[in-house]
Amino acid sequence: MPRSAAPNAGHYHHGDLRAALLAQARALLDEDGPAALSLREIARRAGVAAPSVYHHFANLDTISVALAEEGFTELVARLETAPAKARGQLAEVGLAYVRFAMDNPGLYRLMFGDGLKTSSAENQTVQKLRERAYERVKTGLRARLPEAEVATGALYLWSLVHGLALLIIDDRLDAYADPEKVIRSVLRLAGQGLPAAKSD
Amino acid sequence: MPRSAAPNAGHYHHGDLRAALLAQARALLDEDGPAALSLREIARRAGVAAPSVYHHFANLDTISVALAEEGFTELVARLETAPAKARGQLAEVGLAYVRFAMDNPGLYRLMFGDGLKTSSAENQTVQKLRERAYERVKTGLRARLPEAEVATGALYLWSLVHGLALLIIDDRLDAYADPEKVIRSVLRLAGQGLPAAKSD
Repeated sequence: MPRSAAPNAGHYHHGDLRAALLAQARALLDEDGPAALSLREIARRAGVAAPSVYHHFANLDTISVALAEEGFTELVARLETAPAKARGQLAEVGLAYVRFAMDNPGLYRLMFGDGLKTSSAENQTVQKLRERAYERVKTGLRARLPEAEVATGALYLWSLVHGLALLIIDDRLDAYADPEKVIRSVLRLAGQGLPAAKSD
Repeated sequence: MPRSAAPNAGHYHHGDLRAALLAQARALLDEDGPAALSLREIARRAGVAAPSVYHHFANLDTISVALAEEGFTELVARLETAPAKARGQLAEVGLAYVRFAMDNPGLYRLMFGDGLKTSSAENQTVQKLRERAYERVKTGLRARLPEAEVATGALYLWSLVHGLALLIIDDRLDAYADPEKVIRSVLRLAGQGLPAAKSD
């Protein structure tokens, strides 16, 4: 919907307004980040009066949790459909993860930043999706590490792709021309490790 | 200075007020994060009227840059004094990095988050300190990687410690009891890599 359009709530069928509000919230998120989310601005963009929002969402926190659900659903889908390559799938899963963050920078910050903590911790759908994403990574690791090291390995990979994703969406890698090439090189090193130094 | 104290600016010698304002800004930062920084609140905490702040800082951005300078100075000092161990120094440097973030969560977010970008990019002192920190990591890598791979290696390690630091200060690792042990395990894997999968 164009930003200039401002029909009243009567233009939406029930359910459509909810979807429209979430779509506008998500656009706002990716334009200006989680701090910019406000019920008033979401309503304005959807072309409805602020009170109409309350038919669907009790407060801004409820919208954030719904957005996080959407985000985790899409992230899990991307991780689970990452292509299997001859040399193993972990690099492809890592690439899919960082690409998700690049395609949805505001949503990614909402999902993993310090904003959503309490409310999402209480949301079971978000919890389960998060575990499913983590499980996807662990599955790849079980072929590579003894079971006792899989948890550390998953945290290692999660830290790596989380840090890399944030450095990229926070524009810290401007010296590099091709993000995908950079990501692949970093993930290759992650698999290979750093050969022990003779003298370090 | 206790929060209840509210002397006027006359209580400070010139220079002391600048230091007091920075100290209060830093406390505010670590309590509530970069978004909570405001000239008014910093002045209130230092016990002076808001206009007194302008003798030392033109605006909030100037305070942020001064805080980032302090932060990078301390980070570089920690990285450069990380102990050399028998098995190489990279793990110790990585541990020093994550510990810095844990000890200064708000300051760390300010230094590396999406807040400071433009102003700090224009600040030469911050730039040089950032390069010096990165150089410290590259030095450790030159003993381990061919020169052509050092830049990728540095980005790999930076992504890893940045991601791990944020997961820890954003309270995402609550399942783990001992952060230092977790960090050491992750850094050990980072050096060792993930053995190639037979079937992945």
